[in-house]
Amino acid sequence: MPYPEEAEGFQVDGPNSFTQFHKRHFKLKPFGDYDVDIKIEACGICGSDVHTISGGWGEQKFPLCVGHEIVGRAIRVGPKVTLIKEGERVGVGAQSYSCGKCKQCLNDNETYCQVEPMDTYGSKWADSGVVSQGGYSSHVRTHEHWVFPIPDALETNSVAPMLCAGLTAYSPLVRNGAGPGKKVGIVGLGGIGHFGIMFAKALGAETWAISRSRAKEADALKLGADGYIATAEEGWEKDHLYSFDLIINCANSSEGFDLARYLSMMDVHGRWISVGLPEEEGQVIKAQNLISNGVLIGASHLGSRREMLDMLQLAADQGLKGWVEEIAIGEEGLKEAMLRMKKGDVRYRFTLTGYEKIFG
Amino acid sequence: MPYPEEAEGFQVDGPNSFTQFHKRHFKLKPFGDYDVDIKIEACGICGSDVHTISGGWGEQKFPLCVGHEIVGRAIRVGPKVTLIKEGERVGVGAQSYSCGKCKQCLNDNETYCQVEPMDTYGSKWADSGVVSQGGYSSHVRTHEHWVFPIPDALETNSVAPMLCAGLTAYSPLVRNGAGPGKKVGIVGLGGIGHFGIMFAKALGAETWAISRSRAKEADALKLGADGYIATAEEGWEKDHLYSFDLIINCANSSEGFDLARYLSMMDVHGRWISVGLPEEEGQVIKAQNLISNGVLIGASHLGSRREMLDMLQLAADQGLKGWVEEIAIGEEGLKEAMLRMKKGDVRYRFTLTGYEKIFG
Repeated sequence: MPYPEEAEGFQVDGPNSFTQFHKRHFKLKPFGDYDVDIKIEACGICGSDVHTISGGWGEQKFPLCVGHEIVGRAIRVGPKVTLIKEGERVGVGAQSYSCGKCKQCLNDNETYCQVEPMDTYGSKWADSGVVSQGGYSSHVRTHEHWVFPIPDALETNSVAPMLCAGLTAYSPLVRNGAGPGKKVGIVGLGGIGHFGIMFAKALGAETWAISRSRAKEADALKLGADGYIATAEEGWEKDHLYSFDLIINCANSSEGFDLARYLSMMDVHGRWISVGLPEEEGQVIKAQNLISNGVLIGASHLGSRREMLDMLQLAADQGLKGWVEEIAIGEEGLKEAMLRMKKGDVRYRFTLTGYEKIFG
Repeated sequence: MPYPEEAEGFQVDGPNSFTQFHKRHFKLKPFGDYDVDIKIEACGICGSDVHTISGGWGEQKFPLCVGHEIVGRAIRVGPKVTLIKEGERVGVGAQSYSCGKCKQCLNDNETYCQVEPMDTYGSKWADSGVVSQGGYSSHVRTHEHWVFPIPDALETNSVAPMLCAGLTAYSPLVRNGAGPGKKVGIVGLGGIGHFGIMFAKALGAETWAISRSRAKEADALKLGADGYIATAEEGWEKDHLYSFDLIINCANSSEGFDLARYLSMMDVHGRWISVGLPEEEGQVIKAQNLISNGVLIGASHLGSRREMLDMLQLAADQGLKGWVEEIAIGEEGLKEAMLRMKKGDVRYRFTLTGYEKIFG
């Protein structure tokens, strides 16, 4: 198999035409000693992809090929690579590099590296200035630290969304003590939230899904939830005052959100951790809202390599898989996926497939 | 010594006349089996006293006698009291009761009890409906759990403010890991903040005072600070990015506060804990402000009995004392103290003295 000099993928030219994807060739970064070339076989569609190309998060580097829930085959490994073997099935998530030497990198907090953080798409590689391009494409080239072997038990299309959505849910669960004897809530039953329920339960916590209506209740229970709270119902929080040890807020909008009511359900020093990045202006927080139970409010960004490997192993051990709807990569499929993502019309993640047919 | 049937103290009639104190007799709650009667010898003046009587925190139960940094002598103990001996020098802080049976009470979180929480002033005793009156008075009567023996090494007038301000600083320090190897910041060098510096240092943390100007730098260093940050100076946060494990925010105003700059100094998963309750509308927080370091924002309410005893012992062992300005209790002294508190003109706490002269 010849090594790729460049990749081919679907780019968007700007937020005004974010549903128009153009199949183009683009340069990969120079191949480094620790790099791995991956021939892509599937890629999940993350909410971040839509935020990015539709302009919700501000200026981006267009033209841009997004996608950071990548599964494929390692077809070439650099001379110093030890973590990945050529031929292995591997994944790549939302981050593709960090300095490896700073305090954060040395403490399993590499997603918080400030020295050389690199997103899988839209970041500039320091060695060349090449802007990274994501997984709606034929190949990616990434440092081995950010490439993860996929256990055999996990199926390519359903594991793809774990690479970002799954890890985004898993990391704050384990960092904040989700496990036996703990009561954990997951707000927002979407791509991240459905993994949140699955993993909270798999980790042994009493797991509650928290959603607006009862529309997703049956799904939540199937995913492993022990209970369901519908916030459209009167007095929804009353049975749960001072009871949650941890709530992961996966909602991707903060509009109409009465935070104080959610926080009233937290036990003393419970934690409310947001993983979504809503496009709205944020919420007013008064110390008064926090003091009646000493709750802690935080946010979480992806997860470490170690957590990624642990999560994949947990999924393999317990037979967990993302609930995905497969959609063929191509101008049509991508357009349809973007429009449906904007409406929240997916249960609970799209995975792009058919790479062989499009890219050969 | 005869047991008191009632107490005598200085009450305020409402926020419009909060500097006018009236010496009056008022009823004590009925004496219970676990109650302790305390003849007061000194009382610190807490910011809460001023917020309460000047109306900043909304409706209160006037007429009201405030004061909850009380030191005095236990002159009578109920038949079931085991924690306090008659004749002992004791303190009372801002809380005077909790149910003792709920999950919070059983886990050293009695300050978060929702069943029967009682403030030292302005709360209704369940046994009688009597509204509790504070320490600008001759006597208080309180459940033994909320009465604390004062170690002999500590002097009455300088230990008084520890009963609320000291504990308010101490509890979040120990609950959030202040100690050797940790970098701790104290924002706001007032009554609570000056104890924060003292205790953070005593607990072994690298301790930084964070204040607007350099006016209090010499004091901060004398209190034990290892360093000082003046937020009126350009680029004040730049040398401290990603470095603080914990910052206790003792500021009692949030006006003009650029929270994002403070948070940029926090290490990954560092904690920003507020203990002040500003009267303003609160701050807008976006998940984006929290995600670059996964910082946790919280608030803390007083502290447990166990923490109170530990704090007093720490102060005794290390010779720590509040920096107090003594002021004689009486109409004049109280008026002057209130006016100066409103201007923040005290370094760093008033203690009311001369009780024997006024109350006999």
